[in-house]
Amino acid sequence: MTLKIDRIGSFHIPGRTLTVTGIAPREAVLTPGGPVRTVDQNGEHEIEQMYVQFVRLTKPRARHPLLMWHGGGMTGVTWEDTPDGRPGWQMAFLKAGHDVYVSDAVERGRASWSCLPDVYGGQPFARTKQECWEGFRVGPHGSWNENSKIRHAFEGQRFPVASFDSFVHQTVPRWTVNDIATQAAYDLLVAGVEPAAIMAHSQSGNFAFTAALNNPEKVRAVIGIEPSGTPTPDQVDVTKVRNIPHLVLWGDYVDASPRWVGYKARIDAYGEALRAAGGSLDVIDLPSLGITGNSHFPMMDNNSDEVAALVQDWIESKGLMR
Amino acid sequence: MTLKIDRIGSFHIPGRTLTVTGIAPREAVLTPGGPVRTVDQNGEHEIEQMYVQFVRLTKPRARHPLLMWHGGGMTGVTWEDTPDGRPGWQMAFLKAGHDVYVSDAVERGRASWSCLPDVYGGQPFARTKQECWEGFRVGPHGSWNENSKIRHAFEGQRFPVASFDSFVHQTVPRWTVNDIATQAAYDLLVAGVEPAAIMAHSQSGNFAFTAALNNPEKVRAVIGIEPSGTPTPDQVDVTKVRNIPHLVLWGDYVDASPRWVGYKARIDAYGEALRAAGGSLDVIDLPSLGITGNSHFPMMDNNSDEVAALVQDWIESKGLMR
Repeated sequence: MTLKIDRIGSFHIPGRTLTVTGIAPREAVLTPGGPVRTVDQNGEHEIEQMYVQFVRLTKPRARHPLLMWHGGGMTGVTWEDTPDGRPGWQMAFLKAGHDVYVSDAVERGRASWSCLPDVYGGQPFARTKQECWEGFRVGPHGSWNENSKIRHAFEGQRFPVASFDSFVHQTVPRWTVNDIATQAAYDLLVAGVEPAAIMAHSQSGNFAFTAALNNPEKVRAVIGIEPSGTPTPDQVDVTKVRNIPHLVLWGDYVDASPRWVGYKARIDAYGEALRAAGGSLDVIDLPSLGITGNSHFPMMDNNSDEVAALVQDWIESKGLMR
Repeated sequence: MTLKIDRIGSFHIPGRTLTVTGIAPREAVLTPGGPVRTVDQNGEHEIEQMYVQFVRLTKPRARHPLLMWHGGGMTGVTWEDTPDGRPGWQMAFLKAGHDVYVSDAVERGRASWSCLPDVYGGQPFARTKQECWEGFRVGPHGSWNENSKIRHAFEGQRFPVASFDSFVHQTVPRWTVNDIATQAAYDLLVAGVEPAAIMAHSQSGNFAFTAALNNPEKVRAVIGIEPSGTPTPDQVDVTKVRNIPHLVLWGDYVDASPRWVGYKARIDAYGEALRAAGGSLDVIDLPSLGITGNSHFPMMDNNSDEVAALVQDWIESKGLMR
């Protein structure tokens, strides 16, 4: 299928300007074969910006662009090819007729990050492969054995486990202290584009639910793919989003992970609050539909196109396509 | 103009697996509203991978894909929209009929970077806005005054100076110790794709010249846009690339920067060595053609399409289009 595309491009959402002083200059060679130069970081820097790449179709069938937000320790690459090299959900939703805006959140990927001292007030961390394997429900806790290189996936697992290292290539370091800056950047994105639908994975679920509360007139749908958090219902006014259709989608093996049982309970509570306020939060629970074996990354699993089609059906059902 | 696109996708070039021990675990909240968790980085990680995003046309007119490599402290965003929001060279060369592969080098952008202790054997640094302004020949040395916010650009400057902060958003921290890993990743990319043309900006000029030497049978052209380094001619066998057309392109104001006079002299010497070995290195010196005012980033300047067309003419002249 040929995509007819008007434009591929990108921009950054601004953060803030920071002026630093008191860093000792040092010497470095910047290009192989180049001269020794003094590196002096004192002065003005831009920090906390966010990166957004868009692909706009010549004739989108969707009424609104689709903003695709990645989860914690990841970048927008989440939505591109799967680790085993199949087209991912960026392609799936382009083919379905959406203009797509894939972003890298503050301090992730092409958004850049700050190496200046004391900017973030915390230390970054990198997930181990074991934490990815177990935390993303590829295999059960205790299934990863580094010494023997044996990695036991859940029975029936649809994640492309033979390409697990390729998946790990997509992970990036993260801080845990930049949620305010990240939310601000997402809010600026939502406020700046035409009304849009938001598809948010994992950590960004909370940012998306909150972005809808902060700019309800700009949000036409919130789609949480395995979201890991929500606003606290009694601390926000959910009536503001009661006209915005919400969807959450869950993979398999949740019951095997106390952490994910807890996350899911929070989402359920948010859905209850939305419904109590006259709003809606629909749930696609894949195992309940007889679709078993999905990990925390259904956009990468071997039935990724099938799952995307279920989400697309929901989008169609909400009148969001022309 | 509608682009007819077969596929947009991405992959990572592998680096290596690293096992770390001895890092003290700590506690963190990973998602707003989520529980406190223990973060333990001990275990296996993947490091030194590189990111590659491709856009493949349904019917490319170019005989070979075009690999687009960014400069130091930047990412593949260099090739996307200009800081003032015009389509950049990714779009220009797609429109001209090339499949394009835009990469983020090791430790830059979506390639990820390592926050683990002692991995890189050095400290990263961030360029100040002043260093960007002066080092990239937007304004002369001494033209940046942070206190008064006066920024004097070179007279006739074509860089979109009103959007300079948006340009700075594209910059990322860099180490200066990862050249071997970076070259290895570029070499793997070149070895892995079908024969390709390479377009390399600034720092990556050296990586591209070297990649051609390392896999001459896979490289059909090397195009250095303001390259900042080359292999040392008497340490390499330039006869290996004498059948590969080389081009370098220069902007304006080089004579005002002793650093760039030095860089250019190195490139000139490499060109001499190539020609002495029966090869070729063509030069597009924009001011010599009467095109004045270009910065170190001609793909962002206000005549970016005009400059791209000159490069495209050269590509056509080398028989690289169908």
